[in-house]
This record gives sequence, structure tokens and C-alpha cells, in this order.
Amino acid sequence: MSLANRNLVVVDDLSNGEVEALFSLSDEMSNSMDKQSGVCRGKIMASLFFEPSTRTRLSFEVAMHRLGGSVVSAVDIGATSLAKGESIADMARVVGSYADIIVIRHPWEGAAKVVADYAGVPVINAGDGSHQHPTQTLCDLYTIKKEKQTIEGLNISLCGDLKHGRTIHSLTYALARFGATIHFRPSPGLELPEHVKRKLTTEYTGRLESYDNQSDIAKVRFFPLDAIYMTPSKPHQLANIPDVSLQIEMKTGVDALYITRLQKERLMATAESQDLKTDYPVIDRKSLKGKEFKRTLVMHPLPRVDELAYEMDADPRSMYFKQAACGVPIRMALIALLSGAKEVSIAKEADSFVHNMDYPIYRRNFGVKCQNQNCVSVNESRYITPEFGIINLEPLTLRCAYCEHEVHPQYIASSDWHEGKVDTKKYHRADSHWARKIKPENLIIFDSGGEAEAHGFKPSHYAREHHLR
Amino acid sequence: MSLANRNLVVVDDLSNGEVEALFSLSDEMSNSMDKQSGVCRGKIMASLFFEPSTRTRLSFEVAMHRLGGSVVSAVDIGATSLAKGESIADMARVVGSYADIIVIRHPWEGAAKVVADYAGVPVINAGDGSHQHPTQTLCDLYTIKKEKQTIEGLNISLCGDLKHGRTIHSLTYALARFGATIHFRPSPGLELPEHVKRKLTTEYTGRLESYDNQSDIAKVRFFPLDAIYMTPSKPHQLANIPDVSLQIEMKTGVDALYITRLQKERLMATAESQDLKTDYPVIDRKSLKGKEFKRTLVMHPLPRVDELAYEMDADPRSMYFKQAACGVPIRMALIALLSGAKEVSIAKEADSFVHNMDYPIYRRNFGVKCQNQNCVSVNESRYITPEFGIINLEPLTLRCAYCEHEVHPQYIASSDWHEGKVDTKKYHRADSHWARKIKPENLIIFDSGGEAEAHGFKPSHYAREHHLR
Amino acid sequence: MSLANRNLVVVDDLSNGEVEALFSLSDEMSNSMDKQSGVCRGKIMASLFFEPSTRTRLSFEVAMHRLGGSVVSAVDIGATSLAKGESIADMARVVGSYADIIVIRHPWEGAAKVVADYAGVPVINAGDGSHQHPTQTLCDLYTIKKEKQTIEGLNISLCGDLKHGRTIHSLTYALARFGATIHFRPSPGLELPEHVKRKLTTEYTGRLESYDNQSDIAKVRFFPLDAIYMTPSKPHQLANIPDVSLQIEMKTGVDALYITRLQKERLMATAESQDLKTDYPVIDRKSLKGKEFKRTLVMHPLPRVDELAYEMDADPRSMYFKQAACGVPIRMALIALLSGAKEVSIAKEADSFVHNMDYPIYRRNFGVKCQNQNCVSVNESRYITPEFGIINLEPLTLRCAYCEHEVHPQYIASSDWHEGKVDTKKYHRADSHWARKIKPENLIIFDSGGEAEAHGFKPSHYAREHHLR
Repeated sequence: MSLANRNLVVVDDLSNGEVEALFSLSDEMSNSMDKQSGVCRGKIMASLFFEPSTRTRLSFEVAMHRLGGSVVSAVDIGATSLAKGESIADMARVVGSYADIIVIRHPWEGAAKVVADYAGVPVINAGDGSHQHPTQTLCDLYTIKKEKQTIEGLNISLCGDLKHGRTIHSLTYALARFGATIHFRPSPGLELPEHVKRKLTTEYTGRLESYDNQSDIAKVRFFPLDAIYMTPSKPHQLANIPDVSLQIEMKTGVDALYITRLQKERLMATAESQDLKTDYPVIDRKSLKGKEFKRTLVMHPLPRVDELAYEMDADPRSMYFKQAACGVPIRMALIALLSGAKEVSIAKEADSFVHNMDYPIYRRNFGVKCQNQNCVSVNESRYITPEFGIINLEPLTLRCAYCEHEVHPQYIASSDWHEGKVDTKKYHRADSHWARKIKPENLIIFDSGGEAEAHGFKPSHYAREHHLR
Repeated sequence: MSLANRNLVVVDDLSNGEVEALFSLSDEMSNSMDKQSGVCRGKIMASLFFEPSTRTRLSFEVAMHRLGGSVVSAVDIGATSLAKGESIADMARVVGSYADIIVIRHPWEGAAKVVADYAGVPVINAGDGSHQHPTQTLCDLYTIKKEKQTIEGLNISLCGDLKHGRTIHSLTYALARFGATIHFRPSPGLELPEHVKRKLTTEYTGRLESYDNQSDIAKVRFFPLDAIYMTPSKPHQLANIPDVSLQIEMKTGVDALYITRLQKERLMATAESQDLKTDYPVIDRKSLKGKEFKRTLVMHPLPRVDELAYEMDADPRSMYFKQAACGVPIRMALIALLSGAKEVSIAKEADSFVHNMDYPIYRRNFGVKCQNQNCVSVNESRYITPEFGIINLEPLTLRCAYCEHEVHPQYIASSDWHEGKVDTKKYHRADSHWARKIKPENLIIFDSGGEAEAHGFKPSHYAREHHLR
Repeated sequence: MSLANRNLVVVDDLSNGEVEALFSLSDEMSNSMDKQSGVCRGKIMASLFFEPSTRTRLSFEVAMHRLGGSVVSAVDIGATSLAKGESIADMARVVGSYADIIVIRHPWEGAAKVVADYAGVPVINAGDGSHQHPTQTLCDLYTIKKEKQTIEGLNISLCGDLKHGRTIHSLTYALARFGATIHFRPSPGLELPEHVKRKLTTEYTGRLESYDNQSDIAKVRFFPLDAIYMTPSKPHQLANIPDVSLQIEMKTGVDALYITRLQKERLMATAESQDLKTDYPVIDRKSLKGKEFKRTLVMHPLPRVDELAYEMDADPRSMYFKQAACGVPIRMALIALLSGAKEVSIAKEADSFVHNMDYPIYRRNFGVKCQNQNCVSVNESRYITPEFGIINLEPLTLRCAYCEHEVHPQYIASSDWHEGKVDTKKYHRADSHWARKIKPENLIIFDSGGEAEAHGFKPSHYAREHHLR
């Protein structure tokens, strides 16, 4: 099976079976590293890093060199074409006409999708803002799989900055798809974003239990328990009260504990930064001395700052340097597959605990916009038409096609009912029955009544009342 | 024919026949891209970028990789050796002892010439300040040639920032040489520099008509017409009044319209920048709806900012992504030729509408200096001896050998007449008859009377009078 | 003989015989440059530059390309992982799991040792703060050897910034080992650091004569004579008064004069910088017109600023571009040897004028610390345990294992004498007889009495008296 000309923008771009096949190819390449130098001979990878990085970039570049390919890289881009005002799309088109495959890191959520939309060659997302970091997730999964033989049914704790950590977001989806049970243990104030939680509950087939009023027992560890995602593969194992959950965890043990640094560079306000830093806990031997941690894989995407003690380096449970080291063979396999240099056979698609949702698409170059100021569609609005999936009608909920953040718009109208008849050109409240009545392809959605009126719509009776309040 | 060990510092470094041969080689390489990987095997290109760039640098580097060669690059040089105070000449000598070919971009006009003077290996100018950008011009010419089969006799409009755009300056000379008619349509205040206009009128065999008092019709389009360069290949076609010219243009159509962004980073004062920006027009479908634009190639060297609407991307007249895409094969051909890896046969030199001028050289390490503060000879005066071509005697006009800007010095003297006789050691006004009387090899030229006196000269009768006024 | 998996962190990591063998391999490679492209095929070098550099980095990268290997580089590291708070050790472990050999430049003294300690692959120091720059020294020695056939017995002057110049420190040790006589001619205030002088007097077998009260004749040249290192290979040649020394120098001539720029970026205070700059002398033809300079090699590690006049470039005595040019073959030989791609035969170890000193090691994670604020052990104290060689007992003198700076601690105690007996847990003055009495493996050393007391020690009688004064 060929994956040629596919992209890896989000972790769901690869099916479970494709991920397993990629892992096998990675094993094969690891075992005969010096025989891979002809695989991508003559091919050129462009590595475009709009954000600083050393580890990720070098592992991609080393991977391409081990495959016998060439690399051109632009690591100073923030200071270059951005300064000249160039768009991501233009860069993608031009670099896509030079190189055979593109690796992109960018501070804006959704930027990798824009590159993939315009480049015309396979694109790999090496991290787009706080959105996703799918190749890190492949390394994480691969490490767990190597050590535990499976992902399904494992108890995995994700700890620390769950809000900004793109590695956390990608990993959460992947773990859910492969049937793991996930304990979310954020540093207070850095909980998993709402849109990630929602995606877990709508698209993945397990159950998410949140603990808003954190019980004392939930706080007992270094990081308080905020939520548990319970996989359908082990439906009876976990109860929906944290006390019981923790008791079970005590019995079965934590299979992996994944900790991330505080993503300081993504904190918006200085105040936020200073408040949070003081509380950020440290994983060390002492915090992992309970028997439920006896066989726990201690994982970290690196770089670490102070949240993971150096004394852990010698501990056999520590996996973070293994995670890093598998970055080269995993990325070798990925580049070889997407560039078409290698094919894999996928015997039978593995179980994937995910509903494939076909949400109606909403796409207009006026009206509702993504509210995430770090979304590529907001920052490159010169040429990007806002696009959303309509993931719910009551309440009306849109998911940005770029950054996956949600919007809850207030007003709607129809493009169908007013042709030639100005007095029928009305806009309605999004929470009225009109949300279901208007066909998705006719729907026009506005951020505000003023915007609707600027486009020639008049408020309906209820919308006016709402407007006046 | 071998071009080995030649440089490409200015576009005139290649004859018309050599340019045509390079285009043929580029075609050949495009058509069998995967068979070129042995052409430069074992050769190393150093890519030295003292100014930010992504597109140009990556296209050079991809080109070298496609030829099977290696690349080392220094893209952060502003922050490195410059900080340590190193000269361009020292860097050129050292890097020339490492690599087989050098590509240089630098913010100072003439810097590429200095690198070529010292490196001892072939040097390609990838842009030196506002001076030239010859490889971009090769891409531009190649694109026009591909689309229109010839350059000769075409009507080409150059629009926007004609003052700072190095791509414009290189392209102007190349178009003139290949026999195109050029309409200059600057954004007001950003007209073609005087020294470029002068070079057109002295060295190229066509005629330049300027329109200082812009007639109403000249202003009718998005950019007002400032001047027309009329090629000798079509001498009877254009009249010297813009109205007629425009009428003819209306009839024959515009073959290519070349627009550049405002080169903000080259604007000296903030005031200048702010005044200009507001007036900078936008090329969009509406501005190109006239029938004279029906078959117009819409060209841009990229990156664009707002001067070229995104709606043009889908328009079949738009050539800018084609211009960019041919950057790789064009640069492959160029690297292969200059490094001696390939040779070409030039059947018969094509027509070149240019006079080969052998101006007398003026070169002294005291006296007149280039007045362009961005000229390499001014910034690296520690070791560069000012050098000029004497392009006119009345009025005395020098052209800097580095940046090609002109100097109009006020005082002259002779190194011949004062040996041992102090009272004959006089200096004269440059506009006196002495300018013709003193042999070029004896000429000493001063920026000021004070400087002449500091070197032991006394004012002649007329010079003193002038001095006193 | 294989040098595979060895590091080059300090110049003493290679024996004299190994240096000679490396020079032979370099000669061999120079003579058949185009036959080396298979030597490192399939190997990857990571070039990690935490400090700006162009020349050194490019020469390493070109060297690896000429050997047919690949290169990944991170030149912007100051702005990347450091910003995220990553440690040098973590980066070394990760990059060591990607690449086959690492080249590191870092602003902190001792950083290259840390990389070597953690990487697990061969590490080459490309300059660590003011500490060492061993590959530059190999180029310097090679150039001298080429021109003078030998190093032994030559008279070599080191001039300029001897304090901060890492090239000077590496070169000093190497010249001493190979039997040269060295005249140190610092710009006033920029003398050779004490720890370098001490190492010369303790570990190298020659004699160092310092001239604190500089006689008039010592000042006669552009740089005043501060000290002479007299090699044991010519014991009778030089007297210990500078006048005589200079007279001899006048007779035998200066074989090489090595000048460095003022290392502005290493000057701590602005005041220091401004005072020094004005006095920094210039080497030009005039300063080298004496007959003792008739066959002097004029050397400079580059980049130069103003200390070496451009007029010297055309002088046949000038060697600095030759020094730079041999950077590629020297580094090719080095990479080939350390990566195990080549082996050398060392017929018989050449004379090395150095005592191999086995100082007792002092290593504790509390107590005395290195006092050099630019030492890696101070800046990365999160995980680096301070480590010292005890190079003298009276007075107690420690040499930092990382930066080689010396510490003269004031207080000591024993880990042996107080087990269970609190009242015998005493600390003593370092200059008391206890320094000799306590076994090195039991020694505990404190920076201050307060620190000793914080660890539960009480002052001994003499220590208290000292404390009270």
C-alpha cells in the first residue's frame, strides 16, 4: 500500500493500521541502518522552521540523510520572509516547486494545513502552535508499544501543561484511538482545552469523566486529577468517581506517566506565567516511589526544564532519551512512506476506537471567523477563507478547520430565502429553531448582529429582542 | 565553450549568446531532472547570505543538490563575523579556499564584486543591496522567452518600486540588450535611479524618453508613465509623446507587466516610508481588464505583500509562480557552467543591443570617493581603493566600479605638472577646460577644495573664485 | 592505530605522535582531495554552534562533505533550546543518539567536555569560551611545520589578547609540548591567565621567566614582553633577563609571530573594553622591518579587525590565509580518525616535553565550587558535580576539571573523623597542616566558614581565630 503524496498534518491523518505498518518499517530500518542510504537518493526535503527547534529539526534532517536524500533548511524564517510580509501559502507554493517533501514548524495553529493545501508535495507537521505535533506522538506511541507490546488497555497519565502542549493534544487523540485509558493530571490552570475534551467525547467512543470539584484524593499526587478518559476496550474497569478510579489505578498500576514542561512561550500574559510557574511540580524518585509506579514508563517529549529531576536519568523506568532516539528511525520510515520511496502492506486494519464524523462544512469569506488569535486563518486572512465543521446545531457549534478551536456563534441567516425579496432577508438567533431549519449549504453565520446588518440582513423578531437586551 | 571560473556579478557578465545557451541547458536539465545527480558530484557550494532570504537561497541550494553537489551555508552572517569586525574580502578569501563556488547576498551595493575579486573561485551574486540580482533576471527572461518565444520587440511594463528594486535594475539592462521596449511606471517617488537611466542612454543603443510633466493620459493607469525605453529593433514604432505611445500600446498590447513590492527595508527615512506606502497601488483583475492586457504576462519576483491581489493566482496570465519554479533549473544550469561541470556550444552570438564601452579607469586611494553610503567601497574603505569609470568629461562624471552610482566631482588636478615645482601644483574646477586637458592617467579628482589643499594643491585662479562664492 | 571514539576537547587529548600522524594523513588527503569522497560515506556530523562562527563551522562542514559524509547543523542554538531552558547534557545525549560525530562551539568554558561526557559519540571542541580551540591549534602547528619543517627549538612570539584568546591557550600548550621557545607579548592588561602560566610551570618541563618590572628594552616592540617560556630542548640558549633574551632573539630571529584580535565579546565590563581598545597595536610592514623578522611567519587565527594591516596580505611572510586554508584537510583527517573511518600508524612516539601529572581528584556535590562565572560547571550546576584536580597542597590549589581555572579555597575538613562524633566534626584553615594530614579521598573543601558550618562543621581553634579576624 502506498502512502505517497499523503500529508501528516494531524495524527488522525494516519489510520491505526498505517501507524502499525510505519512502526514495522521503522523497526526494519533500525535493524539495518546502513542499508537505507539508497531509499531516498535524489530526493530533497525542505525543512522550514518558523519557530526555534533543535531536536525535532535535527532528527528530521538526520533521518533524510540516513535515507540518502538531501536537505535544505530555513531555520531563521521568522526574521526573513515574514519580515518582508510574505504569506505562508506563497512560501508553500514556491518551496513545493523546489523540494520533494516539506517539513514545517510554525507558531500559528493550522499553519501546517495551509502549507499542505498549497505545496503540491507531501507535508509533515513538525508542530503548529499549540495544535498538534504528530511525529512526536509517533515516537511516544512507538516507545510505549516497544516496552508494553500494546497500547490497548493501558493506564496512561498525562501531566503538567495540558493546555498549550501540542504533543499532549496529538498524543491524547492517538491514545484514545488505540484504546488506552487516560488520566489527565494538569498543573492547575493548564487543563486540557475544551475543544480537545469535546473531540474526545464526540469522536472517540470512550467516555470522559471530569472532576470539577476535585476530591481530596484527586489531589493526592503531584498533579491533581482533572479528568479520566475511559476507553471502550475496558468498559467495566473504571468507575466514574475518582476515588474508585484511583483505587483501581493503585491496583493495576500506571503504565506510563507523560510529563511536559510549562510551555512558557505560549503563555499570553506575564501575570499568567508568573502565577503558574511557582506551582509547577517536579517528578523525581520520591514522587514515583509508590508501588503503582513500579513498572511505569516515565516519558517526556523534551526539552525538560525543572519538572523532571536529573536523578531520574539513571532510573530504568525513564524513557525520554529512548523517545528521542527513536525519532530518527520513525521519521525515516515516515519520509520514506510519504515520499513514495517505500510501500507497506497492511494486512487488516487494526481496531480504531474512533467514529469517523462527516460534519457539514461551513465556508464563506464573510461572517463568522475563528476566535483563536493564534489561528492561521486569522493571521493570514488575506487569502484564507474561514472554514468550519458544523459539529453541533443546539447549541450551534463550529470547529475551525485550521486550528480545531470551537466557535459558538450568535446569529444565523439563510442565503436561500431572500433572493430579490429584501424584507425576507432576516437574521436569527443561533439558539432559535432556525438553526435546524436552514439547510447547511444555505447557512450564513455571523459573529454579531452588526455584522449581519452590514450585509443587508434585518433582525427577526426574536433576534431584535435579543439584540436589545 | 567553457564558462568555467567566470563570475555572475552583474547581468552583463553573460553575453546574449551565453544567456541563450544557459536557457537551453536549463531546458535540457528540466527534462531529465533525475539524470543530473552526477554533474557536480564532489563539488561544494558555499551559500553566504548577509541578508535574510528563503526563496533565493533555497533555490540555489536545491539546484546544487539536484546536481549531486554539496552545500554549506551561512545565513546568520550579519550576527556573526560582521560582529567580530571581519571584512568581506577576508571572508571571501577564506571561503574561497574551502568551497568550489560561492553564492553571496549582501546588503551593500558592490559586495558581490568584492567577493569575486578575492575569492579565487566562481562567484554568483544573489543580490547586492539595490544594485543587481542577475539570477532573478535570468528567471524572468526565461519565463518571458518560454511564453512569448522571444524578447525582441516585446512591450514590457516595469511597475512599482523602480528605485530600490535590484531585480528591476538587472532586468532593465537585460531587456534593453535583448531588444525589448520598456515602459517605466514607477510608484511616484520611486522612479528608476538616474545612474540606471544614464546607463540606458549611454550604453544601450535605443532611446529613452522621459515624461517629466506627466500628461493626463500618462497617469491613466494604476502607475503613471515616467519614461519609455525604445529599442532600436523597432525604431519606427513608438513616438516620443506618451499619448501616441500609449495609443500604440493599446493596439499592440502589453506583453508583460512586472510589478515589485515596495522595498521597505531599503527606504532610508521613516518619513519616506510612510508617505510612499499609502500610494502603492494594487494589481488585480479589475486593473487588468483592458484589452491591451489580454495576453499580458503578470510577473513578480516575489515575495509579494499587497501589491498583487491573491485573486490573480488563479488567472492564467499570472507567471510569478512559474518564475519562481524555474529558479531551480536555471540555477542548476548556471552552477554547472560556472563550476566547469558543463560546457555549452554557442553557434553564433545573438544580437545584443549594447555598446561595449571602454571607459578610462580612475583609481586612487585618496581624493574622490563614492557618495553612495550603501556602497561597499565606502563601508569597507579599510582595504578597497575607490575606483571609477570616467564616463563623461563635460560635465565630469564618474561611475563607481562597485555600485555603479555616479559622482559629479567639483575639483581636479594633475599628477604630472607639479613634480618638484610646488607653485605649479594647482587644482582646477572640474567644469573648466582642464578636464579635457589632463590625461586620464594623470588625473587627480577631489570631492572638495579643502581636500585638494590638504594634499598640497593650491587653487587655480578660477577654482579660487569658485571657492569664494 | 585507531583513534576511533576518542574526543578532541583539549589539545592534550592527542599525543605528539598522534598529531604528527594526523598531519601526514592531512597531507595525503590534500594531495588527492577528489579521492576522499568515500571515506565517511553514510556518516553524519552534527555541528552545534552556540556562538556565532562562519569560518570554523564552514571548514568543519566542508571537511565532512569532502569525505562524503553528511552534515546537520544548528547555528542558532542560543535562541532555541537555551531559550526553552534545555541543558547541554540533554542536548548532547539526544544529538549523540542521532549523529555519528559532534562538533561543538559554546561560550562557556568546559562545555565541550560536558558534551563529550554525555554524547556517546566522538566530540570535537570547536572553541569553548576562553578555554581552548584545539583544531585551530592543529592548523597553526601544521602551518609552522610546513614552513619550518619542525616546531622544536623555534622562537615564537604570541602577541595581543593573551587573556581571552582560546586559540592562544591551546597553542601555548602545544608549542611547549613540541619544544618551542615562546615569547609572550600581551597587550597590557591582557596577559596570559595565571592558570595557563601555572600549567606551563608545573606540567611542561621548560622554564617560564616573567618580567613584572618590564625593562625598557622589553617595551621596545609593538607589544611589551611579559614572559618567556624556555623549552628544555634548548636550555642554554636563553638567559633569564629580557635584555639578553632579546639580544639573542635579534640574532636568531623570530620564527613566527602570532597575533590575535582583541576578543571584545569576552571583555566583561564596558570600561575594560574602552580602555584596552585604544592601546591595541597594529602589525604592519613597518613594525616588521627589523632583520629579526626577515623569515618570520606572520600568523593570525582570523577574523582580524585592525590589529593586522591589509598591506601585509601581499607579504610573503604572511601565513594567515594558509592557516585558514589548511583548516579543511586538517579537519578532514581529524574527522576521519575520530570517526574510525581511517587509522594511522605511529612508528614511535615523538618527544613530548610534558610531565603526565596524575593529580588526586576532588569531587563532591557540595562545598567548594569553581569561581569562574563562565565555567560550565557553574552555569549547569543542576546536574554537574564540581570536580577538581588537587594540584598543590601548600597553598591548597584546585584546578577545575571543566574550565581549568584555579581555586584557592580557605577551609577544609575530613569526611573520616566525625562519624557519629559531632564534637570532632571540625573544619580547618586550608593553610594549616591539616591540608597534608587529611587523605585526599576524605577531604571536604569549603569556600567559606559559613558553608562549612551549614554542613554541621565547627571551626577548629585556628579556623575560628582566622574567622574572627
